[in-house]
Amino acid sequence: MKKMVEKSEINLRTRSHKGTQVVDTMHNTYAKLHPVPIENVRLVDAFWTPRLRLLREVTLPSQHQLCEETGRIFNFRRAAGKELGSFQGSYFNDSDVYKWVEAVAFSLAGERDPKLVDIVRRVVAVIAAAQDEDGYLNNYFTFERKKDRWTNLRDMHELYSAGHLMQAAVAYNRATGEHVLLDVACRFADHISNTFGLGKRPGTCGHPEIEMALVELYRATGREVYLNLARFFLDQRGRGVIGGRVVLIDHKPFRELSEVVGHAVRSLYLNAGAADIYLETGEKALWEALERLWRSMTERKMYVTGGVGARYEGEAFGVDYELPNSRAYAETCAAIANVMWNWRMLLASGKGRFADIMELALYNGVLSGIALDGRYYFYVNPLADSGGHRRQTWFSTACCPPNIARLLASLPGYFYSISNAGVWVHLYAQSTAQLEVNGKSLTLIQHTDYPWVGEVEMILQPENEISLSVYIRIPGWCRKAELQLNGKPLETRVQPGHYVKVHRLWRAGDKVQLSLSIPVERMVCHPYVSENNDRVALKRGPLVYCVEQVDNPDFDVRSLVLPADASLEAEWAPDLLNGVTVIHGEALSVDVDTFKGYLYRRVEEVSPSSRRVRFTAVPYYAWANREPGPMNVWIRSSAHTLVSQPHVSR
Amino acid sequence: MKKMVEKSEINLRTRSHKGTQVVDTMHNTYAKLHPVPIENVRLVDAFWTPRLRLLREVTLPSQHQLCEETGRIFNFRRAAGKELGSFQGSYFNDSDVYKWVEAVAFSLAGERDPKLVDIVRRVVAVIAAAQDEDGYLNNYFTFERKKDRWTNLRDMHELYSAGHLMQAAVAYNRATGEHVLLDVACRFADHISNTFGLGKRPGTCGHPEIEMALVELYRATGREVYLNLARFFLDQRGRGVIGGRVVLIDHKPFRELSEVVGHAVRSLYLNAGAADIYLETGEKALWEALERLWRSMTERKMYVTGGVGARYEGEAFGVDYELPNSRAYAETCAAIANVMWNWRMLLASGKGRFADIMELALYNGVLSGIALDGRYYFYVNPLADSGGHRRQTWFSTACCPPNIARLLASLPGYFYSISNAGVWVHLYAQSTAQLEVNGKSLTLIQHTDYPWVGEVEMILQPENEISLSVYIRIPGWCRKAELQLNGKPLETRVQPGHYVKVHRLWRAGDKVQLSLSIPVERMVCHPYVSENNDRVALKRGPLVYCVEQVDNPDFDVRSLVLPADASLEAEWAPDLLNGVTVIHGEALSVDVDTFKGYLYRRVEEVSPSSRRVRFTAVPYYAWANREPGPMNVWIRSSAHTLVSQPHVSR
Repeated sequence: MKKMVEKSEINLRTRSHKGTQVVDTMHNTYAKLHPVPIENVRLVDAFWTPRLRLLREVTLPSQHQLCEETGRIFNFRRAAGKELGSFQGSYFNDSDVYKWVEAVAFSLAGERDPKLVDIVRRVVAVIAAAQDEDGYLNNYFTFERKKDRWTNLRDMHELYSAGHLMQAAVAYNRATGEHVLLDVACRFADHISNTFGLGKRPGTCGHPEIEMALVELYRATGREVYLNLARFFLDQRGRGVIGGRVVLIDHKPFRELSEVVGHAVRSLYLNAGAADIYLETGEKALWEALERLWRSMTERKMYVTGGVGARYEGEAFGVDYELPNSRAYAETCAAIANVMWNWRMLLASGKGRFADIMELALYNGVLSGIALDGRYYFYVNPLADSGGHRRQTWFSTACCPPNIARLLASLPGYFYSISNAGVWVHLYAQSTAQLEVNGKSLTLIQHTDYPWVGEVEMILQPENEISLSVYIRIPGWCRKAELQLNGKPLETRVQPGHYVKVHRLWRAGDKVQLSLSIPVERMVCHPYVSENNDRVALKRGPLVYCVEQVDNPDFDVRSLVLPADASLEAEWAPDLLNGVTVIHGEALSVDVDTFKGYLYRRVEEVSPSSRRVRFTAVPYYAWANREPGPMNVWIRSSAHTLVSQPHVSR
Repeated sequence: MKKMVEKSEINLRTRSHKGTQVVDTMHNTYAKLHPVPIENVRLVDAFWTPRLRLLREVTLPSQHQLCEETGRIFNFRRAAGKELGSFQGSYFNDSDVYKWVEAVAFSLAGERDPKLVDIVRRVVAVIAAAQDEDGYLNNYFTFERKKDRWTNLRDMHELYSAGHLMQAAVAYNRATGEHVLLDVACRFADHISNTFGLGKRPGTCGHPEIEMALVELYRATGREVYLNLARFFLDQRGRGVIGGRVVLIDHKPFRELSEVVGHAVRSLYLNAGAADIYLETGEKALWEALERLWRSMTERKMYVTGGVGARYEGEAFGVDYELPNSRAYAETCAAIANVMWNWRMLLASGKGRFADIMELALYNGVLSGIALDGRYYFYVNPLADSGGHRRQTWFSTACCPPNIARLLASLPGYFYSISNAGVWVHLYAQSTAQLEVNGKSLTLIQHTDYPWVGEVEMILQPENEISLSVYIRIPGWCRKAELQLNGKPLETRVQPGHYVKVHRLWRAGDKVQLSLSIPVERMVCHPYVSENNDRVALKRGPLVYCVEQVDNPDFDVRSLVLPADASLEAEWAPDLLNGVTVIHGEALSVDVDTFKGYLYRRVEEVSPSSRRVRFTAVPYYAWANREPGPMNVWIRSSAHTLVSQPHVSR
């Protein structure tokens, strides 16, 4: 039985830090870039800022309420001996509470909301109270199930839940300065470290997560034992200790992997954890494996939205080029994991291609996971639908809602990084950032209506004149970009998908103007993805578009064919979907009556006909916020809607 | 504990019958057609006859061996008290043995193989020995699990397994005249009848099958209690007695169903059972529901191969027009169920559209389920593959192998039917049939190389001159058919998808010549099946074709594009795949190098190019019998392989 006991004082050596970093690489030598604390970046734009307000005012309070209603928080009170009853829900439910705490911590770093402070303090207190004397903490394995602790690492998510506790604890400590949850996390980490490792018990978790978490706990505390334990858990994979299944990415040692396979979230969490270990150790074999896996995903297994996971079965990656649209799984958590992984790859390398995928997944595959009202979520994010797929308030497996909350809450932390040479600008939005490079302070102000326009004005306000480089990301989606410094064109080579380095002695008021060409683009897909043959996806800037039935009442969007020469126009629609740029165009609607009563016909039996229609496409992230109906990302694009009469030899 | 006990003598009133019918409708008034016993139709063709020989000599003996090796038959010996040990395998494993017995019975009806007689007698004896004193028989629920009998009808397949016992018993009785297994089945049916029913226990099986089986047992014995029990189990659905889940087709009463949903095999087994009940009761509401379900399936949810079940998840039908190709589930058992259901619909109505689907599923979706060597099976039958999908010798859930065996073994029984007015010819193959119409005998000989050619010569040899109608099926796939009687054109209206009635006084040697036009056809699909937009499937006669990599070494079959004006030629290839007609044509292979390193590109960045190639397509049923590689049924057919430079407004 576990009780509220006096916790033994932990001699905690938290490292000095200056706020709430999402991945704190300040103390290691293998990171090329170092994140900027959330506190230091203030978004004041029309795209993200209302979302972060909604997150504080609606999403986080409603998720807390759902965690209460579903017994997730009760389980902690029960374990703490404060309430009686049975464990409620699934064995992994603690992790949702931890993710919610992490989200609140990030949100508080961005803006201190007294109501949220009050709620989260109470939740943190009950989490601490639930911890066992020996440091163990998992509400499923209390009382009658205590004997089953650590007996099924493959299935029971014990280390996964522990990892989310650690991440929440680090974020909460960084955001509030309070140590209470970090103490809990360290006690549990010490318990785990005393249990597992070389010369102790073998094992690793069926669901990766502990790896990232232990590295961050190492970063927060400086205790190398946590980094070593993270590496141990990574190294245990592929050795049969949890059964060797592909879906768990346990079929091979990590360093021998060459393609992303198995459960998509687990796969990318593992990659993110391995990237964290690389950031701290600089181990070349890890980086090489990560690069192979990144190419496998981005060149053969990723949706145009940055979503991943082609299969419902196992929530898994499919084979190469297996990317169904209407039955895409593309779990919200997997797109989030894609952001997390690419963020770490970017920190390690400073390479724009990682920022490109991060931005793509963020604006599309992730953002589609939450409704515009902040209360409904997608678990699965298809790229085509006949009208039945709708967001829900919660799920029995509720991993996605608090996961998207913690990502959005931490978003200001993804905009900039610092390197020895200067400042890196990754994302664009109207904002003000307080940055510190080599001990010197500067303010960086962005004026822009990104992602709707491609013009970004950056004004630097150093406290004193400062010589440094500003690395400005030229998105890979952009075909033409221009840079001006104080009104004069910069002669630097500007290469989409890379960072432009602008080095000078910066004075207060220096102005860099970035002008990204942002036309409507038609994307085509590798021919081996048969679902997308003779189809185009419309993109504009970082946004993928879709045609939704509700905007196109005159025809069924499934009958739409976009001629090759159709003109496409972007138009700002301030009253639509909280303000979006829509795409209009002339296209054809194919007559389907020729198939009335038939699923298959001989080509000679159908008389293809079509009529001209005007269509409207909206950003994919905003779909399914109005009345249900068919939706489609990949639009049929051949001018030939049906093959004409063939010559057939009899 | 159950032991070998003296079985109480059952006063069995089997009805008179003249052989092994697949569905015996001779005694009811609602069937329009009545099957002809398997014994009476002797196939001597090059397509089916070698398969039936392989079935006898390889498939059935090897399946028996696998049933032994996997403990399936051991479980009966164990229940009979003849061997000690634990139950082996899954709770539904008895059913595989029953299906194997049924297959052997049908095979023996076609040709008496002494070795098979010997084996099946021993298996039947051990089945009988395993039966409990009270008639119950399910090896999973013996000894320690006896207390759990009938406690979970939803999940445990008890009635399903019972149904397969009954079907096996009826077939074995009809084929051999032996009563032993029929006694067992009736005892078990009586036990079930004493347990379930109005005023007794409610319930129905999560996996339909018992309905068909009880009706056939009624047909074999004349005991109305079995028919009533079948109707009871049907009527119990949709009333919450097993939980109301869609996947079990338990969400609505059967008569209210309007679309095929849920587990595809269960759905079509249920429909077949309902059709059996209709055949015996003539209940209009049942027929109307069956017609709605048939239209739902054939107009919106069936693969071009006659396979069904779009989803891996739940092995289920998808929504309307959801028919993915590479991730098609299309379980072999579901295609078999499609044959079974349409056979009953045909018997009820005499309508050619049911025979069309039956033939389509048989030659394509079913036949692809077994390798040419008779030893390997597909459970899942995709319509496209990148080379990883291969047949296996067996499955842990081994429903498909013995199911395909029992269908193929009974195939001669599907060729003809008898009605009051005459003889119905459904299928074509070189064969000799002994038919009896209104007590008069005639021999019907077919000379043909169907399905490779469309010429069929039918010679009638009545014992004495006989006035009757011969109903000749004009397949729906045929666009032009001609009939000659004794060398002179028949002026009858010949309509594809219908039967032509030829009425006359038939004399020995009268000859009907049917000439079906059998060109290579390009099939197109309803535009709402987005996967098949701008694609064609090649068909010739009843056969669907596919391009397989092994026949096309000069290009990747995934790059194939068939121009609208490409000529297509059929060629007989005697040495290929045991002899097939292949389709050759000129087409284009699209250059994929422009996508090297990319999954998505802007349309302007790709330079579409292609080269002319000569391709070969083979019948779909024969794929994956040689070296692995990509395969594709739906061939990209637009002449435009990529859209050209669009005008985009910036």
